[in-house]
Amino acid sequence: MNVALIGLEGHQSAMLEGIVQLHDVQLVAVASDNPDKLQAVKRSPAVTGDTWLYADWRELLEQHDLDVVGVCTVNGERAPVLLECARRGVHILSEKPLVTTLEDLATVRAAIEGAGVRLSMLMTMRFEPAFKKMHDLLRQGTIGEPVAASAQKSYKLGDRPEWMRDRATFGGVIPFVGIHALDLVRWTTGCEFTEVAAWHSNVAHPEIRDMEDNASVLLRMANGGTATLRIDYLRPTMAPTHGDDRLRVAGSEGVLEVLGDDRRLTLMTHDQGPYAVAPDPEEQFFVEFVRSLRGECAHRISAADAYRLTEICLQARAAADEGRIVSLAPVREHPSR
Amino acid sequence: MNVALIGLEGHQSAMLEGIVQLHDVQLVAVASDNPDKLQAVKRSPAVTGDTWLYADWRELLEQHDLDVVGVCTVNGERAPVLLECARRGVHILSEKPLVTTLEDLATVRAAIEGAGVRLSMLMTMRFEPAFKKMHDLLRQGTIGEPVAASAQKSYKLGDRPEWMRDRATFGGVIPFVGIHALDLVRWTTGCEFTEVAAWHSNVAHPEIRDMEDNASVLLRMANGGTATLRIDYLRPTMAPTHGDDRLRVAGSEGVLEVLGDDRRLTLMTHDQGPYAVAPDPEEQFFVEFVRSLRGECAHRISAADAYRLTEICLQARAAADEGRIVSLAPVREHPSR
Repeated sequence: MNVALIGLEGHQSAMLEGIVQLHDVQLVAVASDNPDKLQAVKRSPAVTGDTWLYADWRELLEQHDLDVVGVCTVNGERAPVLLECARRGVHILSEKPLVTTLEDLATVRAAIEGAGVRLSMLMTMRFEPAFKKMHDLLRQGTIGEPVAASAQKSYKLGDRPEWMRDRATFGGVIPFVGIHALDLVRWTTGCEFTEVAAWHSNVAHPEIRDMEDNASVLLRMANGGTATLRIDYLRPTMAPTHGDDRLRVAGSEGVLEVLGDDRRLTLMTHDQGPYAVAPDPEEQFFVEFVRSLRGECAHRISAADAYRLTEICLQARAAADEGRIVSLAPVREHPSR
Repeated sequence: MNVALIGLEGHQSAMLEGIVQLHDVQLVAVASDNPDKLQAVKRSPAVTGDTWLYADWRELLEQHDLDVVGVCTVNGERAPVLLECARRGVHILSEKPLVTTLEDLATVRAAIEGAGVRLSMLMTMRFEPAFKKMHDLLRQGTIGEPVAASAQKSYKLGDRPEWMRDRATFGGVIPFVGIHALDLVRWTTGCEFTEVAAWHSNVAHPEIRDMEDNASVLLRMANGGTATLRIDYLRPTMAPTHGDDRLRVAGSEGVLEVLGDDRRLTLMTHDQGPYAVAPDPEEQFFVEFVRSLRGECAHRISAADAYRLTEICLQARAAADEGRIVSLAPVREHPSR
């Protein structure tokens, strides 16, 4: 299986780490217009003496016959890459969000569906053992009907590249970071959303310009329940970890929660006080994706997920930009539940 | 000082416990139309052989010359009691929310301001040491400008009285419980709010009828920051405590948080990793209120707070009922900051 990677701006490590576990998958080529990143990627064990490096992604696609392309470009420059991959009939593993405008989403979706290629998106948190275990317990009905959910993503700001400081290239923290929080709630509960309200702003960090340092999102669930997403780049420099990721779902029969720097999963029900649940070992993201391409399993993140998550985040961003509640279109495909 | 208590449906213990600490304050009378509660209150050390008991609050007010009345009635029946207290020139310590409609709020406010009586509201969480310490640290600028805040109130449902199951007598979980979460964010940060969106619903508990089992509230802060409130009655029976109350504020220079069954306050800044901050001993609620009446201090919860908190909660409830964003009126009095 011939694999290429276009862009080195995101979660490409999930792909690179998988490739080295797959003896019949080759990283044929990598493209990045960032010379430093292209130089640095040579240190990855997935990059061999047979791997071609390109500054221009169009040249990469022209030169190689590929089965899969990972697209980890700058957010605002992803749409043309996705369209070209679809046109060439190559399966796609995309960074999130898929694109940064609803217009691009419609165009890209039509192209990918028309081409019949497979699409998944790098929602890597679904492969973190605590969240996966929480998903499994929720879907088994361990806490009954999900009623109220909340997720937090709090990151250290650190140094941010120039492309994140412009809305046109970045897209906003709700599509970029909030999409993880949204996905955690939607995926673990299996609940769809019907309406969204949100606000975002940059209160304390003028140096990052368009990039928001905080966002809060309010969602109405299809079953009538409610959810909130909290996103900030305010995690202190001295915090023990980069991200303070949390997920709490309160259901009719109990509460499940991932909380703390050790990402501890706690279950509490009407029958039993709180106790820590040990997660199961998880498969590697890209290894599962390749297995799904071979028909051995479904991948954890479907194309429908990629479209819907991107859509909701872009609608939430519109809600925040315009100060209004946005009704979400009914889903074409429901998440399995 | 002659004190009476009308209604035994809420936080009257904050008043009763204070009275026994004040040798020159007498509980002259108690009124409740609930015979069981009136019987039970006799066990309070604040109730002496000289304390009169009434089924009818109007008769109580008619019979006694009072300095202060605590009003802990059913939420929807508070307005006429407040109006009568104001008319008689008696200082008021009210259960929260002050009233359950914006019309009643305007009427009661005009009456209290016209009468020149003092008003405070039983926002008892301001006297919990961890939250008070968090307030002090925030107001000292320990974490810089508050940017993103969130508060959680999760309660066990237990047995709920009939009056909570009707909107007319209860008012809704946002005014009843959410008001605490709102107050914690507003009081600790000193930030006012400009807009609110919310949803609430009863997903899993038809037996409590109108009473919502969950609510989520999204607020825009005057400085551009964002806040969320999460309220639910989904805390499992087997949870170690009745309430899982949390407050997190992320600022430009750090994060302050109260979290856990032990209500631990944690501070983290750009200069120092997370560490627990010991709270200070707190004064008793009613003792401070009496001192404020004597001009010895300001009470922690002003009349302006009582009006504003009630107003925001009723507007948040309207936002939830009607599925719209509500702009909040600019404040007449700003919280001290």
